[in-house]
This record gives sequence, structure tokens and C-alpha cells, in this order.
Amino acid sequence: MKKQNVSDAVIRRLPRYYRYLDDLHMKGIVRISSSTLGEKMGITASQIRQDLSCFGEFGQQGYGYNVEELRAEIGHILGVDERHRIIVVGAGNLGRALMQNFHFKDAGFLLEAAFDVSPALVGSQIAGVPVLDMSELERFVPAHRPDVAVLTVPQSAAQPTADRLIDLGVRGFWNFTNVELTSGISSVRFEDVHFADSLLTLSYRITVR
Amino acid sequence: MKKQNVSDAVIRRLPRYYRYLDDLHMKGIVRISSSTLGEKMGITASQIRQDLSCFGEFGQQGYGYNVEELRAEIGHILGVDERHRIIVVGAGNLGRALMQNFHFKDAGFLLEAAFDVSPALVGSQIAGVPVLDMSELERFVPAHRPDVAVLTVPQSAAQPTADRLIDLGVRGFWNFTNVELTSGISSVRFEDVHFADSLLTLSYRITVR
Repeated sequence: MKKQNVSDAVIRRLPRYYRYLDDLHMKGIVRISSSTLGEKMGITASQIRQDLSCFGEFGQQGYGYNVEELRAEIGHILGVDERHRIIVVGAGNLGRALMQNFHFKDAGFLLEAAFDVSPALVGSQIAGVPVLDMSELERFVPAHRPDVAVLTVPQSAAQPTADRLIDLGVRGFWNFTNVELTSGISSVRFEDVHFADSLLTLSYRITVR
Repeated sequence: MKKQNVSDAVIRRLPRYYRYLDDLHMKGIVRISSSTLGEKMGITASQIRQDLSCFGEFGQQGYGYNVEELRAEIGHILGVDERHRIIVVGAGNLGRALMQNFHFKDAGFLLEAAFDVSPALVGSQIAGVPVLDMSELERFVPAHRPDVAVLTVPQSAAQPTADRLIDLGVRGFWNFTNVELTSGISSVRFEDVHFADSLLTLSYRITVR
């Protein structure tokens, strides 16, 4: 599998391919041409072929793609079959909403625990997952080695909490704090969810000029 | 202001420019060169100049950009000063989390009401905003003409609720349902928030190959 120099734009499109192929697979569709897939996704067939060529050879000239196979291949490229371990740090409204509504398992993640400072939450369970005291991080993380921390703490706690988790060995951060986090360690990855960017894009599109 | 044929990629970068400029402005920075701004944002200076040239002339050769002016200009392009009206449809965990934590006002939106079917929620207030019964939509929407509906209903209700709101005149949807919505009306805009796409991008980056 080729994987060097894959552009950020291609990486960002992969989950979308995965989502569409998953949907087609659920609907019982076995084969699809790049042009039909492109039409559904609002991109060109040649863009699809070019994107996928970064990772190897898929599909057969004139026969299109086998939906189930391509879905599995892209899932593999994305690491969906890696069973990454994940923890939620900050079990306020947003952390809780994610735990109750987001299908971590479908994305290949095993949600192991949540952490919070609130005595009202510590000791409870959310969606069957235990909420532990933040002070337990120093014991839990080295023992369970989670791959990713969902960061849903208040803004003022964002960078200090990230630093603390990085010291404990966490390398992936799904960052909902709206704070731009930094780390001196090159293997640390921050994936930021900026709700405002999305709403402002919509604002642009509905603004009459 | 030029505005024709602005690519999707440029539109998606605008909120990011706005966010960085807002941050610089808050820090009291008055001027910034395209190269320094680019360094901060991880893009090239020529990319910035090219993006901004879609909308007019900004900055002065050799002097860089006036941070406050450029922030205001981009905010205007994004429609931040339009005071768009917004409603939340579905006041479950996620709807509630957004109402309590997201700064609608900073994005130029006036949050007017939330709607839900649950008798336990109807009549209450969340973050100072009234929760009304879903059956009130037919009265409320024509009277208040909200520009955007935040869609945080269950998946099975997503398309029917969107259809109902479109019939009532809503044209912008901030869609958190993970359902790909469709409409026969070309002026309707869907902005989808796919949490899974973001987590899968992170999954790709932390997967050791």
C-alpha cells in the first residue's frame, strides 16, 4: 500500500468515501462505477480514481468497484479495524452527548472510560461507561494506554490537560475545546472540531449579496 | 466585492482566517504580514493572498494586513454582521450542549427558540432560551422567519423534519443528524457536521503502517 505524501485533502475525503460506501453496502448495492459514486458525492469520477490511486489499485476497468471490498479497504486504510482505545476527558454536556449519541464502535474505537472533576458525576456511568475522577488519569492511562483522548474540558483547562495526557503517553486528541493546542512532540496528533467554522460556512452561503 | 465562482475550498478556509484574525485582534496585534499569518495557520503566504483576492484587495505591499480591518471584512463576507436568526430543533443532549456551550452570538446568530417533543422539556428554558413544543413550529416559523435550523433530532426524524421546515420557509440547515438530507429547492443549504469523518481522519493519522 502506497502511503507517502498523501495530501491532507485526500485524507479528509477518505472518511466521506467510507461513509458513502457503508451506506451503499447497507442498501445491498454490490457494485458501483466511479461516475455513479462521484455523482452521489458531488465530485468527479477522475477525482475518485486519483484519490484511490494514492493507496493502490482498486476496481476494474469497465466493471467499477466492488462496494463491500472497497469499503473494507478504505476502512483498513483509515484504521477502523485497529480497535483503537479512546477516553473522554470532561463529561459535561458535550462529553455526555458524544458518549450517548456517537457510535464510537462504528468508527473502530473502544470507549473505555470518562474522566471528570465533578463529584456528582464521578462514580456514575454514562452509556455504560464509568466516569472516573480526573486524579485517576495517572493510574489509568499508563495501565490502559488509550490511543485517543476526546477533549471536552473547559477552555482554560484545555492545554494543561493536553500536556498532562501527553506526558502520560496519549498521542491522539479529538479536540472540542476550540483552543489551538500545541505540543513539542511530533507524533502527537490534534484533530480539532470547530463548530463555528461549520456554522460560518453556512452563514456565508445563506447571506444574500 | 467579487464573489462569483469562489471555490468551496476557499469558502471553507474563510472561517479559519476569521478565527485566527479574531485571536490576533484579542491579543492586541495590529498588523500582520501574509507570511507570518501563513506560518501560524500552516499555509503559504501566496495561498492567503490568492484566497483573499477572490473578494477584493486587502493589505498593502510591504505593510501587511491591518488585523482589525481584515477581521471585519472577512466577518462581513461571512455574514457575521447580518444577525441571522436561528432555532434549535431537537433539544436532547446534543441540542442542549450546543445551546449551553456554543457562542451563537459570536458567529452572528441570534438563538430564538428550541423545539422538542418531550413534555419534560417543553416550557423550560435552556441557556435562557425557551423550549417550545414541536407543534408550535407551524405558528413560530412563519412569524419569526428563522434563517437557520440546527437539526438535532433522531435520524428517523431528520428528513421529515427538514421537509416540514423547508415547507415553512427555512432555507439553512446546520445538520447534526448524520443523515444526508435532500431538497428539491435550490436555495436550501445543508451544512452537515459529521463527527465520524473527523474522528476517522484522526484514526488514519495515529494508525501505524
